[in-house]
Amino acid sequence: MAKKKKSARPKARLPKGFRDIDAAEIAATREMLATVRGVYASYGFAELETPFIEYADALGKFLPDQDRPNEGVFSFQDEDEQWLSLRYDLTAPLARYVAANHDRLPKPYRSMRAGWVFRNEKPGPGRFRQFMQCDADTVGSASPLADAEVCMMAADAFEALGISRGDYVLKVNNRKILDGVLEGIGQADEAARLTILRAIDKLDRLGPEAVRALLGEGRLDDSGDFTKGAGLDADQIAHVMAFVEAGLEGGSRADVLARLERLVGGSQRGKEGVAELSEMAAFLDAVGYAENRIAFDPAVVRGLDYYTGPVFEAELTFHVEDEDGNRVRFGSVGGGGRYDDLVARFTGQKVPATGFSVGVSRLYAALEHLKKLQAPAQQAPVVVLVMDRARVADTWRMVEELRNAGIAAEMYMGTSGMKAQMKYADRRGAPIAVIEGEDERAKGIVQLKDLIEGRRKAAAIASREEWVEQRPAQVAVPRGELVARVRELLEKQHADADDEDA
Amino acid sequence: MAKKKKSARPKARLPKGFRDIDAAEIAATREMLATVRGVYASYGFAELETPFIEYADALGKFLPDQDRPNEGVFSFQDEDEQWLSLRYDLTAPLARYVAANHDRLPKPYRSMRAGWVFRNEKPGPGRFRQFMQCDADTVGSASPLADAEVCMMAADAFEALGISRGDYVLKVNNRKILDGVLEGIGQADEAARLTILRAIDKLDRLGPEAVRALLGEGRLDDSGDFTKGAGLDADQIAHVMAFVEAGLEGGSRADVLARLERLVGGSQRGKEGVAELSEMAAFLDAVGYAENRIAFDPAVVRGLDYYTGPVFEAELTFHVEDEDGNRVRFGSVGGGGRYDDLVARFTGQKVPATGFSVGVSRLYAALEHLKKLQAPAQQAPVVVLVMDRARVADTWRMVEELRNAGIAAEMYMGTSGMKAQMKYADRRGAPIAVIEGEDERAKGIVQLKDLIEGRRKAAAIASREEWVEQRPAQVAVPRGELVARVRELLEKQHADADDEDA
Repeated sequence: MAKKKKSARPKARLPKGFRDIDAAEIAATREMLATVRGVYASYGFAELETPFIEYADALGKFLPDQDRPNEGVFSFQDEDEQWLSLRYDLTAPLARYVAANHDRLPKPYRSMRAGWVFRNEKPGPGRFRQFMQCDADTVGSASPLADAEVCMMAADAFEALGISRGDYVLKVNNRKILDGVLEGIGQADEAARLTILRAIDKLDRLGPEAVRALLGEGRLDDSGDFTKGAGLDADQIAHVMAFVEAGLEGGSRADVLARLERLVGGSQRGKEGVAELSEMAAFLDAVGYAENRIAFDPAVVRGLDYYTGPVFEAELTFHVEDEDGNRVRFGSVGGGGRYDDLVARFTGQKVPATGFSVGVSRLYAALEHLKKLQAPAQQAPVVVLVMDRARVADTWRMVEELRNAGIAAEMYMGTSGMKAQMKYADRRGAPIAVIEGEDERAKGIVQLKDLIEGRRKAAAIASREEWVEQRPAQVAVPRGELVARVRELLEKQHADADDEDA
Repeated sequence: MAKKKKSARPKARLPKGFRDIDAAEIAATREMLATVRGVYASYGFAELETPFIEYADALGKFLPDQDRPNEGVFSFQDEDEQWLSLRYDLTAPLARYVAANHDRLPKPYRSMRAGWVFRNEKPGPGRFRQFMQCDADTVGSASPLADAEVCMMAADAFEALGISRGDYVLKVNNRKILDGVLEGIGQADEAARLTILRAIDKLDRLGPEAVRALLGEGRLDDSGDFTKGAGLDADQIAHVMAFVEAGLEGGSRADVLARLERLVGGSQRGKEGVAELSEMAAFLDAVGYAENRIAFDPAVVRGLDYYTGPVFEAELTFHVEDEDGNRVRFGSVGGGGRYDDLVARFTGQKVPATGFSVGVSRLYAALEHLKKLQAPAQQAPVVVLVMDRARVADTWRMVEELRNAGIAAEMYMGTSGMKAQMKYADRRGAPIAVIEGEDERAKGIVQLKDLIEGRRKAAAIASREEWVEQRPAQVAVPRGELVARVRELLEKQHADADDEDA
């Protein structure tokens, strides 16, 4: 019976794919976003925040993964039975915003947005159902310079975050070129186009053999699942692969362009794509954003089907160890592209648009690896112990003095004795514990325990007797000098920590 | 037919109760939260962020409003058919977090959380279905000092935000006292207790007559809806109202306590409540938080049913005009209380807890009214016009020079001519437009248009001819002095703006 009763209690657990975030990550993420925001603001992109919930039809269905009902989106019905969805990216809501406010917005309209998005997808290691994106978009400009600009801005943001030139690259391609190639092999069908696109998108992860299979009959993966292919014949596959691999040979932007020009042949749309890339290249050359920052790569196609022209992928090129200990490229931390039809979904009127989206958690992981997180070391508070409950107001005054001097401090708020209070201060990561017992009060002093030095010494001390004997890292100071002496001790601790880092 | 086609397009609109937020509000809210966070951090509260989605049973059903299915919560089923909910406050997720991490957390565990919460309620003016809260909680302390501390901390935060002493008050009560009063009138039934509680909670909004009706048979509201009452008889109602009105007579915390002590009579639970308030009062007196900051008010009960002891309400006492032009108190901007059973829902083990939650949008509105928003005036960018598309790289270099000097700047990214570009710069709120046409380039100069001065002068100028004649607020400067002269002009604009404010 007791068991039955117990099972009526809810379990304290999170649904798969969600996680709690601790103080250090919150603060470091905030700093990171402030840096990105600084760069974007200097380019004239203004902040905007759209709500988490929108009408499902306003967001549309543009996600590549369809292994869940709802096509990857969390949806539910409103009271009036209309379908609502949690936003799955920050681009679809921007299109809704621009369509709703078109007349009063300056054109082009440049905005940045940062916030959580949600995917109702199968979670996995490092793959969450709630994650953060940070986007910048220029809506209302058809110019390839606008595409170039968001890539340049992303490159600048990476460097502002401390990622060295050479450790990142913005890879750029143009969907129209792929369209031209498909025209050339007689494949203009919309559904086949999407299958081909997603096959190419897997090049990085699965390699060229798998892509060939996915372009042809299909592919049996390691788990035994069969993915139906695009059904191209051998010649068609060869042509598509030649296009995809046009970037692998390397070379300058001009070299890649020359190869692509040959591959699109007479296709009008393909030529348009090449011309747009050429205009980007000319501008990037003229203003000094070299190939080691922004390169052309035909293998970049992006999985989302709303892109209509240039597409971008930001890759970090330094190596890390994966779960199996293999040395691998860090990989993608963001991407984007041009989506000229997204606003027209609402208004019927074509509004050209382009943008770049950073995967904030991926970028965070990268900066953590590079030791470039500017975590503003939020000091754990000094803990003032409560030795005499009848005198808590005196204890509180010590806390208040410290706090007024800009030192985070707290009075122990539990009901336990001295030993538990010391354990608390320790668990809390407190740098110092302040103790004023009856004896101390009579002598007009307080004890300061240096908990950082204490932890170090405790490790070196053999017995409890020795400990009591030595009372490591404890100093009695006049009550009137509390603030000055605590500050002194904190400064010493910081200096010691810096020495250790050095 | 054309009409039919049009209606197939989604409408660019938001569901009711949701809204977009502009750059100024985003920046000012960020500043506001940074100030609150600074105060809370100085008290030793560490940041924590829980996800937006939790299992519905983990959040529980604690919302007062039941005018929607789902009882006010947005819910949907996961793939495995378990119910998920969007968080409706930041307290229920904290209880889940503490239960899940109990062994490794320091006790007491002090955290702060800020973020969006969602209510599936009927939206109204100023009442949104997505809004922001900022909470601080001490979990693992049964001490009334912990209750006092969160109120003191909230008071400090209000003052740090620029709300003067006297313009806010933290009103404190204790649910146990109400329980004692109900015991005294022979009403211990749980459901009746909740109805009584919610009747009292409406005192501020509906007045004493309505509360009397809700305590008795029930009440017919203006819209003709009848709300069933708690069914108390006249004597019982009189006793409850005497309790509720014990605070209206005013007086010191000690005066209110003396009145309450009489009202709870012999009830053990009532006496406990009075004793807890007494301990808070003694501490508040000793550390100098006077009645004008933290007062006792028996009419404060809070609508949520998870509170078990002290409850708090933060009220702003200055007056504003409501929609009908009446002078009304600004009113509540937050509240909280003790919820000793919330963690026990999961573990069976009682974990005492208390906390305070700020309604961020309400507080924002208050600071806006008081002109205390510290909006870090994000300057709209200087717009550099594109006069010759063949020379965009030269144009870009001007933008880059400005940006490298710390001046937000952008190159016009559209495809329109000069007139539209000027209109763009104006709509953008740009302070300055930079123009380098063929003539200017030949002479080695650029034109700076002071758009702020220009707007002012344009208003005073009668005809287009006069305008063209005078060319107000335009100055030619050497190309080499671009950055210096733009900076000079921006500084002049700031100085002029300050003069106007003074």
